Amino acid sequence: MLKPEDFAIKTLGEAQVVSPIKFSTVRGDGIVNFIGNDVTIPYAINSDAEPELKGLEFESAGPRKEIYFRPGEVTAAIMTCGGLCPGLNDAIRAIVMQLHYKYEVKKILGIRFGQQGLDPRTGAEPVELTPEGVKDIHLHGGSALGTSRGAVDPEVMVDSLVRHGINLLFSLGGDGTQKGNHAIFQAADRRGLKIAVVGVPKTIDNDISFVYRTFGLDTAVTIAREAVRCAHYEAVSAYNAVGLVKVMGRQSGFIAGFTVLAANDANFCLIPEIPFTLDGENGLLRLLEERLNRRHHAVIVTAEGAGQELMKHEQEAATYDASGNIRLGDIGFFLKNRIIEHFQAKNIPIDLKYIDPSYMLRSVPANANDSMFAAALGRRAVDAGMAGKTDLLIGYWHDYFTHVPLPLAISRRKQVDPEGELWREVLSTTGQPVAQAAGL
Amino acid sequence: MLKPEDFAIKTLGEAQVVSPIKFSTVRGDGIVNFIGNDVTIPYAINSDAEPELKGLEFESAGPRKEIYFRPGEVTAAIMTCGGLCPGLNDAIRAIVMQLHYKYEVKKILGIRFGQQGLDPRTGAEPVELTPEGVKDIHLHGGSALGTSRGAVDPEVMVDSLVRHGINLLFSLGGDGTQKGNHAIFQAADRRGLKIAVVGVPKTIDNDISFVYRTFGLDTAVTIAREAVRCAHYEAVSAYNAVGLVKVMGRQSGFIAGFTVLAANDANFCLIPEIPFTLDGENGLLRLLEERLNRRHHAVIVTAEGAGQELMKHEQEAATYDASGNIRLGDIGFFLKNRIIEHFQAKNIPIDLKYIDPSYMLRSVPANANDSMFAAALGRRAVDAGMAGKTDLLIGYWHDYFTHVPLPLAISRRKQVDPEGELWREVLSTTGQPVAQAAGL
Amino acid sequence: MLKPEDFAIKTLGEAQVVSPIKFSTVRGDGIVNFIGNDVTIPYAINSDAEPELKGLEFESAGPRKEIYFRPGEVTAAIMTCGGLCPGLNDAIRAIVMQLHYKYEVKKILGIRFGQQGLDPRTGAEPVELTPEGVKDIHLHGGSALGTSRGAVDPEVMVDSLVRHGINLLFSLGGDGTQKGNHAIFQAADRRGLKIAVVGVPKTIDNDISFVYRTFGLDTAVTIAREAVRCAHYEAVSAYNAVGLVKVMGRQSGFIAGFTVLAANDANFCLIPEIPFTLDGENGLLRLLEERLNRRHHAVIVTAEGAGQELMKHEQEAATYDASGNIRLGDIGFFLKNRIIEHFQAKNIPIDLKYIDPSYMLRSVPANANDSMFAAALGRRAVDAGMAGKTDLLIGYWHDYFTHVPLPLAISRRKQVDPEGELWREVLSTTGQPVAQAAGL
Amino acid sequence: MLKPEDFAIKTLGEAQVVSPIKFSTVRGDGIVNFIGNDVTIPYAINSDAEPELKGLEFESAGPRKEIYFRPGEVTAAIMTCGGLCPGLNDAIRAIVMQLHYKYEVKKILGIRFGQQGLDPRTGAEPVELTPEGVKDIHLHGGSALGTSRGAVDPEVMVDSLVRHGINLLFSLGGDGTQKGNHAIFQAADRRGLKIAVVGVPKTIDNDISFVYRTFGLDTAVTIAREAVRCAHYEAVSAYNAVGLVKVMGRQSGFIAGFTVLAANDANFCLIPEIPFTLDGENGLLRLLEERLNRRHHAVIVTAEGAGQELMKHEQEAATYDASGNIRLGDIGFFLKNRIIEHFQAKNIPIDLKYIDPSYMLRSVPANANDSMFAAALGRRAVDAGMAGKTDLLIGYWHDYFTHVPLPLAISRRKQVDPEGELWREVLSTTGQPVAQAAGL
Repeated sequence: MLKPEDFAIKTLGEAQVVSPIKFSTVRGDGIVNFIGNDVTIPYAINSDAEPELKGLEFESAGPRKEIYFRPGEVTAAIMTCGGLCPGLNDAIRAIVMQLHYKYEVKKILGIRFGQQGLDPRTGAEPVELTPEGVKDIHLHGGSALGTSRGAVDPEVMVDSLVRHGINLLFSLGGDGTQKGNHAIFQAADRRGLKIAVVGVPKTIDNDISFVYRTFGLDTAVTIAREAVRCAHYEAVSAYNAVGLVKVMGRQSGFIAGFTVLAANDANFCLIPEIPFTLDGENGLLRLLEERLNRRHHAVIVTAEGAGQELMKHEQEAATYDASGNIRLGDIGFFLKNRIIEHFQAKNIPIDLKYIDPSYMLRSVPANANDSMFAAALGRRAVDAGMAGKTDLLIGYWHDYFTHVPLPLAISRRKQVDPEGELWREVLSTTGQPVAQAAGL
Repeated sequence: MLKPEDFAIKTLGEAQVVSPIKFSTVRGDGIVNFIGNDVTIPYAINSDAEPELKGLEFESAGPRKEIYFRPGEVTAAIMTCGGLCPGLNDAIRAIVMQLHYKYEVKKILGIRFGQQGLDPRTGAEPVELTPEGVKDIHLHGGSALGTSRGAVDPEVMVDSLVRHGINLLFSLGGDGTQKGNHAIFQAADRRGLKIAVVGVPKTIDNDISFVYRTFGLDTAVTIAREAVRCAHYEAVSAYNAVGLVKVMGRQSGFIAGFTVLAANDANFCLIPEIPFTLDGENGLLRLLEERLNRRHHAVIVTAEGAGQELMKHEQEAATYDASGNIRLGDIGFFLKNRIIEHFQAKNIPIDLKYIDPSYMLRSVPANANDSMFAAALGRRAVDAGMAGKTDLLIGYWHDYFTHVPLPLAISRRKQVDPEGELWREVLSTTGQPVAQAAGL
Repeated sequence: MLKPEDFAIKTLGEAQVVSPIKFSTVRGDGIVNFIGNDVTIPYAINSDAEPELKGLEFESAGPRKEIYFRPGEVTAAIMTCGGLCPGLNDAIRAIVMQLHYKYEVKKILGIRFGQQGLDPRTGAEPVELTPEGVKDIHLHGGSALGTSRGAVDPEVMVDSLVRHGINLLFSLGGDGTQKGNHAIFQAADRRGLKIAVVGVPKTIDNDISFVYRTFGLDTAVTIAREAVRCAHYEAVSAYNAVGLVKVMGRQSGFIAGFTVLAANDANFCLIPEIPFTLDGENGLLRLLEERLNRRHHAVIVTAEGAGQELMKHEQEAATYDASGNIRLGDIGFFLKNRIIEHFQAKNIPIDLKYIDPSYMLRSVPANANDSMFAAALGRRAVDAGMAGKTDLLIGYWHDYFTHVPLPLAISRRKQVDPEGELWREVLSTTGQPVAQAAGL
Repeated sequence: MLKPEDFAIKTLGEAQVVSPIKFSTVRGDGIVNFIGNDVTIPYAINSDAEPELKGLEFESAGPRKEIYFRPGEVTAAIMTCGGLCPGLNDAIRAIVMQLHYKYEVKKILGIRFGQQGLDPRTGAEPVELTPEGVKDIHLHGGSALGTSRGAVDPEVMVDSLVRHGINLLFSLGGDGTQKGNHAIFQAADRRGLKIAVVGVPKTIDNDISFVYRTFGLDTAVTIAREAVRCAHYEAVSAYNAVGLVKVMGRQSGFIAGFTVLAANDANFCLIPEIPFTLDGENGLLRLLEERLNRRHHAVIVTAEGAGQELMKHEQEAATYDASGNIRLGDIGFFLKNRIIEHFQAKNIPIDLKYIDPSYMLRSVPANANDSMFAAALGRRAVDAGMAGKTDLLIGYWHDYFTHVPLPLAISRRKQVDPEGELWREVLSTTGQPVAQAAGL
């Protein structure tokens, strides 16, 4: 359960240093303004919203007039963890530029290959980061620092931070990484170390709570839309043809949902949050058959995490697993098989084309929108860190950048609301029955 | 001045018809929900916000359980006005699909070439719109209905609406169009006609007030970023080279500002909202010279409406005008000339490359993000119109789709706030001096 | 064996009709020229070329001054067969436009879904094709006419041609389709029918002999390059990471080879024409291990038809087959498994990312280069057909468009020459050992 | 006039060093082969070709078994001159990789900013080029070495080559650069210096003779096609609308011609090689008016060098010039003005949209096709240079890479043949009258 203190932003101490940035504190003088520590954004603004978490307000992110760190005393470090996500390099670049040019911090380290880089047994030494070194990285996909999966003992990581003299850590990653960031904060805090830990949310699945959107999602949808368009062209160019596209999204169906909206050409959208059945009156197979009878082509978009419950007892799925290369419960191959079997059994010739763009969604360079969003998060992370704020991540809520306490952010996972607006939009676009949406 | 009644959403009458859509009204049943007429979104949520328009709340957009129109009694019409904007066809398509499949409205007309199409002296007859006819239009740029500039007498337009039996008009356009929509509403209302007028904001410049974003902007920024990248590559590939890019934005610098953020490569951003000088200590020319001395390349992004005050008394600008093809005050050519003259006078060889992507920003098909956003506006416009709401446009505010009364929407034009977040971001990215931002 | 008559272009009869096209026959008058029937292009021009097929010359394609068909007497038909290929719609469009505007042929039919459309038991009726109907199809992927796999009895197809009054058939397809075209010609010829059969080569694999390039290949390489770039970014962003990309190419490795050249980032290229081993001194696994030791990242590009000999006796491959969804001999999954097993056995942690862009290579709209090439083939097919030429396809050889007799074109399949220039280029780019190229 | 010796490839001396590359010299052993010095490609192969330059054969490019330079004795240098061109970085990268990995040359210099870099008074010092340094440059537009216009005294440049110990120069550029390369060769030769000068053709206009295609052209056409599509969408989305697009091409209309073919949407194509008139029966204005009357929209694509003869005596053009920013004879503005005036005079309202993508055609990164082509030229340039060949450039002819003596290459400029195939294709696509093509 969340405790009241989980809602507050922690700081390393009082902010008594005058920021080197020359902004204003008054409106009307035509000069860009600092953000006050008392500016907040409410969690719930829709008058219909649930009373849950009533009164929760997010601190507004941005540059403070008074900061905690003296520029010359900072050794900053940047770390990217988990899977790739378009925008990682934009965020890294923005953090370096903001530190160097705005806060005059000249000592910036890049941790190599995620948390592994803070494990002295396996990790490479940090690299020095400079404006010259990072100026073109945003044009490339991937992470210029490298990344890795898997957690390292927080105590070991804090040892490494201490060894390198790092007192300002920017850590980019998803739910697991943010849990790790919180653990680093706790370990450092227990030792009485003044190390600011600032998280930047990085999840292509958009599944971090209390953050409206995350960078990379829009780029992923852009690529996924191309895959759906290909599936559509395949489907309409043959008789009784089915285009089946699998996109990322293990526990949250945002990519699948948005892709369906962006593409307009899908007839069925399957996501982890909405169970569905294959057989029976409202089953996917009957609905698909009905669609083919009527239009002779169909497109299905499935999130990789959809329909896991259908594969629970599947001999087939297990067989894949034994062969070592197809993971248990690959919904793409499962659906492909089931659809082909269904129509074969009925002696209806169909032509199924399966497309899995897989990593192409996440290792391309960021599109314009994600580029600027990732960089914006990075700059605000620097603002927060220089102000001595810690154990937080930079969020985005109701069009404002915010400070989200890590205990709050990691308290739950964000998912598509089956009764909410995104899913309503999807239903409007695909025309799939509402009943199916309810898992009937 | 706005009057209190300008804040309220008008309706044609009571909504007593049961919607043909099968949604739910309770949370927790796993079925997508209708939106109640009492659900609102506050205008100001930031605790630092100005008290201006205190208490303003927007009605939430979306499907209502009870609607005004009986599907069989509706003749809907769609009209696109003004300049092209990526997403127009997505919006048209979504309106047709939502009307046809969700509300079972089968009589849908397309007005040809904007308001001209409602002028019987010059306009072509409306065309019938069907799902089959519009199903692929979102893959194309432009407007499938055609568009035009220039206003037609509202009385004449209402005559045409009456002649075609139209009682539900969807009109997509910018500030001028929305003023026209309001005039149509007034003219129809004076005659006691039950015609719902629903606006959909369409402005690539993002300059409609009380609407956070408009479709097309993101696509425009995507293309403009490519132009800036070209300018950057030109600049770094020659010695003392300047890449100068002009982008759309007559009175608002959103495209220029976002492009600079998305591209990362610009050193100066010029927008209509922030006056600047060419000469003197804080003048662009000296700053540019300083930049070239230091780095030997520079990139300038200017909105087409920037620096108009500089050209007021320009003989040169007038000369262009006389020649008939370069409009008064072309900031691109003006800057190009001034920069070249400045360095020639100082005998400093430079290499200036000027890029004006012009209409390429607006006539491409919508990117994924704009596609889904434009379609979402279209669907909510249908929801509003079928509910009998009128004299409004569909907005987007703090992540919610809203109903904005037309008198409110047209009461002012949205611009970049010189003291706000977007401009702060631009300054952080370009490194141009804050002082210049204030026009010093 | 090819017989001498297989080298000659057949005609339906003498070309005695004056072409409606107003070109010139003399050089120097500044007017575009017709092509004479005596203009030829030699097969072998490289002084080092093998003496095989010595003396083979291709008739030059293009508009003739005298043609066979009177425009009013022609009923033309267009048919697309086999898998999709970027450019199909460009070719269809160009054929219609050339027939309609240049040769004033107004009766043009579109056969639906390939050869199936000429089978009265299953096929849909042909559709009428007009300039208005096809004017925008080049902006879309797929085939506007639909396509299908599987052959129909030539006699049945000729029956259908007769029933519809078709005397000029344009048939787009790969090796199998061109064999079918030849069979249609033979069946029609045996009946004494004056039906011109003109093939247009369509193979994304570029595997039709006596044709230097085919449309769609370049577009496929463009998309495949993106997949390889993603694999590269995945590989360099993790430690000891391997990006593995599978691209189309069942019996010919052109896509894989050109993709490797276009991407620059691949370290190994595997194609059907060059056998390779997994184990041993020159085996892929040892070379990959050596590469990872040295650079800690690697990218492998494999054609789907590569390494089939390695999977011949694979229990594993058979298992996939039994499960019904992974076809026998999927080199992608096979390599993925073998590589993971190899490094697991040696206790070397690696991170393998497998990308299969599959149909995305072929169902996108054609890029600029393929658009113009496909349309050029289509126009020359019309020129040939109107001139009464038959049992041929339109080729491209040494920068000239040519007429290739179908018996010649279908006599063998084009493959990458293991001793030739393309493979030499691949070796230069990947740095993989020459020895491996020889299958040692 | 060309002299017989201008047809021969010059060498620095006998090639007696065994190449470090392990290729084969026999066919049939499954190992990639070296190219013999006696392998040639004929200039004219079309049996209809003019007898001019009869007997001209190009030496085939590629790796030789015996080479001239010992790897350890080579100091190579790379220089890029003139305007940017997509593919420059691919070529640079390929030259470095081929030298380093294939020929084991470790001393490679990059000349900064073109010929200026060989002028000690103004130029920066050369930079060291390594595989690590160039490995990612192909992902970027522009030239990683920088470039410049303007010629430097050949004697001065040879002095610089000597000072830096350079004995193998790769110089990428257009017609002027190749003339400069020849002058460098002559100056070095007069001094008895053993410096190999190898040109790589770089012209986005494709105007170098004896070279079938040059890199960058295809990328330029890809971008220009997008501009034409925008013009098309603008044109069809308004009533009586004209989309006017200007593309590069000062003296040769290849970009304009190919763009028209790739886009399919243009109705008029204007190139430098084909004079046209504005007024009169066959004038552009009447034809445009006729087109608008019939279809109410039109698209015109003009090369920047088209119609120069029309502007000779134009007051207007001079006026632009006086204002300093629009160069004499800007065909885009000229046509825009004339068209607007024409229809204004006739009181026919039209809507003209002018698009000039300008540098966007040339500063984008190379597309897949140009990437591989530019790299291929670079590798063969290394093969030629290491074999001691000099005073040549690498060509491409009838699908083979060739050695073209510089005196031959610079003897004339390549243009679109008004009676040839490309122009015939353009006429077929636009539907513009043949008569106009002849300038009647």
